[in-house]
Amino acid sequence: MNDQPIGIFDSGVGGISVLRDLAQKWPGENFYYLGDTARLPYGAKSEALIEQFLIQNIKHLLKVGVKAIVVACNSASTILMKTKIPCPVPLLDVIRPNAKWAVEATRTRHIGVVGTRATVASQAYSAAIHALDDGMDIYQTACPLLVPLAEEGWVDDPLTNMVVFRYVSPMLSQPIDTLILGCTHYPLLKAPFSKVVGQGVKLIEPSPGIIAELEARVELRKASQGGKIDIACTDLTPHLQKLFANLLSPIVPNSVSLVDLN
Amino acid sequence: MNDQPIGIFDSGVGGISVLRDLAQKWPGENFYYLGDTARLPYGAKSEALIEQFLIQNIKHLLKVGVKAIVVACNSASTILMKTKIPCPVPLLDVIRPNAKWAVEATRTRHIGVVGTRATVASQAYSAAIHALDDGMDIYQTACPLLVPLAEEGWVDDPLTNMVVFRYVSPMLSQPIDTLILGCTHYPLLKAPFSKVVGQGVKLIEPSPGIIAELEARVELRKASQGGKIDIACTDLTPHLQKLFANLLSPIVPNSVSLVDLN
Repeated sequence: MNDQPIGIFDSGVGGISVLRDLAQKWPGENFYYLGDTARLPYGAKSEALIEQFLIQNIKHLLKVGVKAIVVACNSASTILMKTKIPCPVPLLDVIRPNAKWAVEATRTRHIGVVGTRATVASQAYSAAIHALDDGMDIYQTACPLLVPLAEEGWVDDPLTNMVVFRYVSPMLSQPIDTLILGCTHYPLLKAPFSKVVGQGVKLIEPSPGIIAELEARVELRKASQGGKIDIACTDLTPHLQKLFANLLSPIVPNSVSLVDLN
Repeated sequence: MNDQPIGIFDSGVGGISVLRDLAQKWPGENFYYLGDTARLPYGAKSEALIEQFLIQNIKHLLKVGVKAIVVACNSASTILMKTKIPCPVPLLDVIRPNAKWAVEATRTRHIGVVGTRATVASQAYSAAIHALDDGMDIYQTACPLLVPLAEEGWVDDPLTNMVVFRYVSPMLSQPIDTLILGCTHYPLLKAPFSKVVGQGVKLIEPSPGIIAELEARVELRKASQGGKIDIACTDLTPHLQKLFANLLSPIVPNSVSLVDLN
């Protein structure tokens, strides 16, 4: 069982930031990453459609034989907050770990959340935070341009700083001291976020919370090295291949292949 | 036959700019617009995948009973330049009409082309322009952020001006006097393009060329008003519904509905 890979799913390349952190933490572990690049991005699509895509992705990962599934896509994770999807292995969303860490981190009890249009509209972060502490004040903003900016590779760029400023500055008039990066692409834009919010606001990223939850729920491989990383995606272009390599660097995947989910 | 609608296809809302121009030109004509919003955008996806999507879209439009199909998506139109797709009704791409108009318009014989990553990589504009006149100099730039900016509605905005400037300014050191807006989203960004390129550069938009080709190849309805517009898409969110209405205004569609292409 413990030799089976941990499955990580995202609509595109954003979840690679989570894969990289997990593989650096556990270099002996096997990982299977599924990116639904044929149908990305999910963040502007409807709840019904995202649920249909998510179920197909989970089926594929189970067929591959993963021992756990990390839904490293906030838009898809919102579905797990509302709908019980049967799954014989641990099925982790990214929202609850982020919410938990934010509630522990804030002193002002004012938490900001940035995410895709789907994630913000779902109110999943409000539900997850208020389930832990219903006295928290929450400020949410949808930032639809940040995924394309990250996919374009403009990750530390004056134009990106201005776009982040446009989205985030209204929220900064509130006494927030904690900002959840509620999309797995956003850790790629940590530099512009840091510049805009300053040192007084803690940025919450998904990987530490996911690591803690995997440690609690999954039997890890007893090896300190030699783990394999296989990447599968539903569409593959030269640009995507370069992005996967850059974002995962210095880790090199064992394989990058094309799969059909239909 | 002439009461049958003209079918217009795009991956998302970009083709609405073409639909609006056609419906304003022929208020008595019936139109059926198909937007593949579940799988948009096409512009960063592979040629094989775009071809597969295009064939599904054409099949759907034929089932509806259209009398002609306008592929109002440059990324999908590049496939029509390379692959013969059997179709019993006239099947129009947007690339050849744009190329024809640009060749007629240029005096310096230097033509710029902006488009998605897929459109630029396909070299479809070079092929179409050089088929008409192989002495033309062509400068191409992929502008992946412009579709998300248009979908976000930041269509006349200082930030969008700066993004357009970043993409287009290297090309302006060449003596181009004609710039093809090689993506049906880009006419929505005509204001920033005009500001960046100035009055010396003519912007080429798809609608006039398509109107000329439809007049030559399709039997139009003999009515000066009362045409119906039906919009179908593969995913529908409140944001999309608002975008369709805004972009088509003042024209009001007869229906907006959800279809499944699988």
